[in-house]
Amino acid sequence: ANAYFWAGKIFAAQYFTTVPFGLNFQGVNAWLYHAGGLDLWHEVYKPYGLVAFPMGNTGVQMTGWFREPINSLEDFNGLKMRIPGLAGKVYQQIGVEVKLLPGGEIFPALERGVIDAAEFVGPYQDRRLGLQKAAKYYYTTGWHEPSNVTELLINQKAWESLPADLQAIVKNAAQACNLDSHSWCEANNAAALRDLVENYGVIAQTLPDDVVTKLKGITKDTLEAEAAKDPVTKKVHDSFMAFRDTHREWAAISEEPYHGIISSKDGMS
Amino acid sequence: ANAYFWAGKIFAAQYFTTVPFGLNFQGVNAWLYHAGGLDLWHEVYKPYGLVAFPMGNTGVQMTGWFREPINSLEDFNGLKMRIPGLAGKVYQQIGVEVKLLPGGEIFPALERGVIDAAEFVGPYQDRRLGLQKAAKYYYTTGWHEPSNVTELLINQKAWESLPADLQAIVKNAAQACNLDSHSWCEANNAAALRDLVENYGVIAQTLPDDVVTKLKGITKDTLEAEAAKDPVTKKVHDSFMAFRDTHREWAAISEEPYHGIISSKDGMS
Repeated sequence: ANAYFWAGKIFAAQYFTTVPFGLNFQGVNAWLYHAGGLDLWHEVYKPYGLVAFPMGNTGVQMTGWFREPINSLEDFNGLKMRIPGLAGKVYQQIGVEVKLLPGGEIFPALERGVIDAAEFVGPYQDRRLGLQKAAKYYYTTGWHEPSNVTELLINQKAWESLPADLQAIVKNAAQACNLDSHSWCEANNAAALRDLVENYGVIAQTLPDDVVTKLKGITKDTLEAEAAKDPVTKKVHDSFMAFRDTHREWAAISEEPYHGIISSKDGMS
Repeated sequence: ANAYFWAGKIFAAQYFTTVPFGLNFQGVNAWLYHAGGLDLWHEVYKPYGLVAFPMGNTGVQMTGWFREPINSLEDFNGLKMRIPGLAGKVYQQIGVEVKLLPGGEIFPALERGVIDAAEFVGPYQDRRLGLQKAAKYYYTTGWHEPSNVTELLINQKAWESLPADLQAIVKNAAQACNLDSHSWCEANNAAALRDLVENYGVIAQTLPDDVVTKLKGITKDTLEAEAAKDPVTKKVHDSFMAFRDTHREWAAISEEPYHGIISSKDGMS
């Protein structure tokens, strides 16, 4: 499961799956395993008699498929888009008509023009749905889901009845699976993206800057409004955001310049 | 251990630890676990009766500490720098006088001006050596070690004597440790970097573009010369580079724009 499935009941659960403009795979695991995130997760689930561990991650997801190019903020006004969750609430505030459709209905709806745009996961999973045959503009930034944590959900009494060695095996298996699933996504998304661009005429590009800036402002206000309503959400929000601010300073001098030097085509290409 | 310790004897081992301008943590694990890298690693080690698994990763390392700012390629000419391995061979070709010093000798040598610059790991480990008290210019790009895989090295006969369930436990524990070590580095480097900048006056910045371009060209020539000498190196080189080319196209529309939107200060900051 994903913790954000329960966000309607426990808003704080949102932070244990993904936060728009939040942490990527590297950052969220740093927060969960080594900056207090997992302890908070256990604290939030305790009243429900549950224990959870991260067990998978998609990495950065694609913004989605659009039948027409997006050139400005105005292009979202009245746009019918399949987009679940918190990102949908944010899009609504720039005029998007949010449609909740199960995975299997996305392709026919997009192909027939019942919807104008759709978000699903990333190149490999999106290609399986055939979305490249219904729309050609494939937008990115990963703003809405910069990573997506899958949860292993365990009954707390059953967990506590396990001896320490079996608990350690389960915890390690979940952690191994977490890395394995992300590595699988990275390898398969890389190959699928190349196929989509080379063989299906897909145009992969970033959203305009002013759109991203607007979405960022709305996300901030939305999260802060939720945190103000409920002390549990506030505690998780404050921990997540404090870590995010420190982590992005580090990302800005580690991963960010690395991407600058590998994407340029001189020398090594 | 790290596979590149054996690169003097088996050059191909270099690829299983790190390659300058090569894959980051996300990319190298995708290659190892899901694009043939680990099978090649086992093939390369087989003649030596050894089996290896990735068991840790530092993530992107820092370029290093410099007593004076680097403004151009010329500033490397005659510069005395502590830098081991393949990156050292690359620096030599732009005039760097490479010094091989063990970790414990870096600080006194840098403080006394016996060396002008030093590479070690990243903010947390470098701060433990006190390097911020010997130099203030802390350069980045991660060009020389965009990740660093730690290896679990096992005697092949001992490995084959284990029943399948115990092999699975060892493999999972190594994979869990791989993610755990990286998460630990991310969390601790983030906190240490903030401390270095705020409390020690450290200036963290990127190398000039023309320096990076030159280093990239030399790295390419050096790797291709090694691959041309030996069929085992060539097989590993070709697999690594083919995956890298596909992975960086994906990185360019997933991680790269993500970094663009989190590092800018508008909205969420």
